[in-house]
Amino acid sequence: MLFDTVCIAGVGLIGGSFGLALRERRLARRVIGLTRREETARAAQQVGAVDFATTNPVEAARGADLILLAPPVGQITPLCEHLAPIVSAGAIVTDAGSTKAGIVRDCGAVFGANAMFVGGHPMAGSERTGVENAHGNLFEKAVWILTPTADTPETAVNRMVELIEALGAVPLLLDAALHDSLLAVTSHLPHVTAAALVHLFMAAQNQTEFAQHLIATGWRDSTRVAGGSPEMWRDICLANAPAIAHNVEDMIAQLEEFRDMLRDTDGERLYRWFDEARAVRTKHGYFPRS
Amino acid sequence: MLFDTVCIAGVGLIGGSFGLALRERRLARRVIGLTRREETARAAQQVGAVDFATTNPVEAARGADLILLAPPVGQITPLCEHLAPIVSAGAIVTDAGSTKAGIVRDCGAVFGANAMFVGGHPMAGSERTGVENAHGNLFEKAVWILTPTADTPETAVNRMVELIEALGAVPLLLDAALHDSLLAVTSHLPHVTAAALVHLFMAAQNQTEFAQHLIATGWRDSTRVAGGSPEMWRDICLANAPAIAHNVEDMIAQLEEFRDMLRDTDGERLYRWFDEARAVRTKHGYFPRS
Repeated sequence: MLFDTVCIAGVGLIGGSFGLALRERRLARRVIGLTRREETARAAQQVGAVDFATTNPVEAARGADLILLAPPVGQITPLCEHLAPIVSAGAIVTDAGSTKAGIVRDCGAVFGANAMFVGGHPMAGSERTGVENAHGNLFEKAVWILTPTADTPETAVNRMVELIEALGAVPLLLDAALHDSLLAVTSHLPHVTAAALVHLFMAAQNQTEFAQHLIATGWRDSTRVAGGSPEMWRDICLANAPAIAHNVEDMIAQLEEFRDMLRDTDGERLYRWFDEARAVRTKHGYFPRS
Repeated sequence: MLFDTVCIAGVGLIGGSFGLALRERRLARRVIGLTRREETARAAQQVGAVDFATTNPVEAARGADLILLAPPVGQITPLCEHLAPIVSAGAIVTDAGSTKAGIVRDCGAVFGANAMFVGGHPMAGSERTGVENAHGNLFEKAVWILTPTADTPETAVNRMVELIEALGAVPLLLDAALHDSLLAVTSHLPHVTAAALVHLFMAAQNQTEFAQHLIATGWRDSTRVAGGSPEMWRDICLANAPAIAHNVEDMIAQLEEFRDMLRDTDGERLYRWFDEARAVRTKHGYFPRS
């Protein structure tokens, strides 16, 4: 057992899977869920993600030696402020937010020297949200980023690394700002372009009923992430606005470059542009779709 | 049997799957492959996509009552010109190109009143190219577009519709220009944005070795099609340049609109934008990824 009592604040897909993994692997004596709604508390207990769930923060967080904050990104800092007076001295508090710089700055300041805050981001998930889709092996082989600062006690980082490895995930220590700028490239911008592609499709649909019959596998893959939660993506965009805006500009520049190649009927340059992308794409991750 | 002798010019994934489907369903007495390379001719015979394959156009096309042109898009019109003197009077010639207006105009003119050209586009495929990945059920439930003009004999269209249905596919008659403008939205632009996303990732990779560790499922899906053949995508872009350029402009406009929402920290508008995309995306095709 790595922890005695773990509190999971926000028991959705990530929080629920974390609870299931802790319990299946016997990494904590007791797992307590903190939810906003009674209904979620009941569901969390039913699927076995927690030993006990409640909507009462005092009941949930008091005495915990590890607290995972896994609500939607926009609620992590308010939740921190809410829990700060309750959290035991020496407890480790971590989060599962998809953006890090703002959260690390704000939550670090909230806890000060009382609890030990370590920013985190398990790179796992699915569009199937909610505790009912949680499963205990969600984090297996997933990269789990930690973003400690110069003020983060080493002992908190070490215990988090130990926990992440015990969950079968791969810990990666990263500067919070670097995390945010890279995630803008590998996750946030692809969501924006997916939603933009769907908006262009909507415009075509408004012009002709045939549009929907011409949807191909490529479109489905390219736009799949646009099916995600609009609340989550609004919050991520607001939390990481500067890095995302920067990437949107870079994307526009890429598209303008492409438009120039088209205008110049520059087959050689078009070939090279597609070929460079193909070479890098086929190196990274599964391809073709399995 | 719907046809006596079918000639498939270009026996790759599409041509090979067409041959396999014809033979498995006994829709033609004889299927002959025409390939550029001896090696492909042998492979086509080996996988059973054709009864016989050759690199000799006269041997392949003479006497055929149906010819499918399935080489890369850029080679369809040159192939038409090459085959025109060989093709039997009254034969139906169709193609499998991903762009239609230019091909229909040029190939229609090449054959004149001799053979009957019907532009076609089976909406099936995969990044696994080549005859070795062909399978006889590739077209099952796929939309197979036909783009007849006012000059196309009705009998040719009717026989093509009959064949498409016999292959288990769904025929859809469409104006060639409308096909091209819709495909720019549902297929060509998503390829361009996928390649552009990979180029942004390459720039991030040049800055830090960590970029590759932050690749998530969303990025893999959004960029999957960038793994496709650069030759094919160069040719498609050149063949459908005006419609694609138009869509690139629309995409840039969407991204500028998004950038403004970010700049204004307009959470309500961001939510609506993502929510509209989510509603439409979840209506069309599988979601989440199966």
